[in-house]
Amino acid sequence: MTKIAFVARGSEGEEAQWLGVLRSALPEVSLLPCRDLDEASRHEIEVAIVANPDPAELRALPRLKWIHSLWAGVERLMAELDGSVPVVRLVDPELSRSMGEAVLAWTLYLQRDMPAYADQQRRKLWTQRPYRAPSECRLAILGTGEMGQAAAARLMAAGFPVTGWNRTPKGADFPVHSGPVGLSRVLEASDIVVCLLPLTAETRGLIDAKALSQMPHGASLINFARGPIVVAADLIDALDRGHLTHAVLDVFDQEPLPEASPLWSHPRITVLPHISATTNVHTAAAIVAGNIRRFLDTGDLPKTVDQTRGY
Amino acid sequence: MTKIAFVARGSEGEEAQWLGVLRSALPEVSLLPCRDLDEASRHEIEVAIVANPDPAELRALPRLKWIHSLWAGVERLMAELDGSVPVVRLVDPELSRSMGEAVLAWTLYLQRDMPAYADQQRRKLWTQRPYRAPSECRLAILGTGEMGQAAAARLMAAGFPVTGWNRTPKGADFPVHSGPVGLSRVLEASDIVVCLLPLTAETRGLIDAKALSQMPHGASLINFARGPIVVAADLIDALDRGHLTHAVLDVFDQEPLPEASPLWSHPRITVLPHISATTNVHTAAAIVAGNIRRFLDTGDLPKTVDQTRGY
Repeated sequence: MTKIAFVARGSEGEEAQWLGVLRSALPEVSLLPCRDLDEASRHEIEVAIVANPDPAELRALPRLKWIHSLWAGVERLMAELDGSVPVVRLVDPELSRSMGEAVLAWTLYLQRDMPAYADQQRRKLWTQRPYRAPSECRLAILGTGEMGQAAAARLMAAGFPVTGWNRTPKGADFPVHSGPVGLSRVLEASDIVVCLLPLTAETRGLIDAKALSQMPHGASLINFARGPIVVAADLIDALDRGHLTHAVLDVFDQEPLPEASPLWSHPRITVLPHISATTNVHTAAAIVAGNIRRFLDTGDLPKTVDQTRGY
Repeated sequence: MTKIAFVARGSEGEEAQWLGVLRSALPEVSLLPCRDLDEASRHEIEVAIVANPDPAELRALPRLKWIHSLWAGVERLMAELDGSVPVVRLVDPELSRSMGEAVLAWTLYLQRDMPAYADQQRRKLWTQRPYRAPSECRLAILGTGEMGQAAAARLMAAGFPVTGWNRTPKGADFPVHSGPVGLSRVLEASDIVVCLLPLTAETRGLIDAKALSQMPHGASLINFARGPIVVAADLIDALDRGHLTHAVLDVFDQEPLPEASPLWSHPRITVLPHISATTNVHTAAAIVAGNIRRFLDTGDLPKTVDQTRGY
């Protein structure tokens, strides 16, 4: 029986759940936590399934050919491995579906003024705020990959005009710009900016004071991608000055968000604990199983992460 | 030039806005606020356009044939006029669209656990709550008229299973029950109940302790219809006992909601100031103008409110 290694850092409960579901999805292989492998077994391992792995455990697998991440965002893994082994990241339509749903949910949260109405309720204030129809609320999607396209489709179906920005101007059924000039154009003409970019050398700090100042007065930001893409201090400044209305943040430079962070208690920031799109273990396991089965049958690797691009 | 009366109670700004937009939409008639009518003009008036009118002003129009309300909910007007003159209520696809949008927005607010995450943020608590997919979250729409059908369409497109309840089991592309037994069946099998019923003698107090107890443990309620349909004290009790998780209330027995109301500060209640579906003066004026023009051309009244049913 082919042996596959499982390398995860997390709670024991999570590991047990993943092992159970993955073993059901891949009954023809022997899936073993790294710590249970003896020296001989370690030399047999060609594929590892990983979730936030300790790189030392991976380096102890001398014949490792590739790694399947259970996560969609792999920037830390890529940095830690530094090109030593090909990485396949999770691309799950269910993950894109739930991300699209989250983008729509928190876009409606902003368009329908829910933060302001919550504040009014605390002050027992009965005031009807002006209604802004979706057609009057321009959305920008930064990052038009699988998730960005799923989000755009949801938003357009709800009546929001959508413009995208992407490293390459990918074919899509909405206008997509690229490059620094394209980014300025998109930011200048958007009432809500949704960040779904991968974290790479190029996107780190991309949403800084300059980018935020290009957004129209009163605009809002949703970051469902990675914390370091947005410069938190610059965002707080733009909110404090009243240039931006609100920010919904699901991702942070450090997670869990430290208790001392000023983001927790900022009245114009909604803090979420990285829940915009949660991995569905069942659909994820089916996709991972399919990729591994194809490799075992044919020797073909699934599409791997580009070391230069970083995703 | 045919004279039409305009009878409204509200701010002067609102009245001026309505008069301006209605006059543009009906340039062939002379639209006059009731107070500007002399005795002779009062005897010419056959049609009045009203928004929350003083019934005394309407009784001063001896030849009044019918009234067009700018509102969709006309229970107070019907009670005050008591059958003395036919009433046409506003049925505006744009109003149904924005109500459908509101139902989807606050359904996602509940499904995505936004009230609980807001509470966690206040306590600086980083906890990922279990994700419940729309397919696992059963929606009930009470009242499957224009607005209910628009809401159901949005919810089904977002993946929520929808069941309806209506006075008559109207044809719809989702199951619709009726009668008291039907109501119990719908309530027992719903995780979120959305009330869009008209306020009538039959629906007043319909959602009482018994109805709330039929909802599953952990269910939530959205009332976007009229306050008195839900017995507020029974709702508070169901929330306090933990039987229900949350309620989103946009309508109240008395509006504006009095400062002394316990609803304002209840941790499991979201209070909105009657903003779920706001009238769009432009689309509403076009519909009212079309109805009045047809009457002036042909003598045909639009569909009027049934005095017995009350809507």
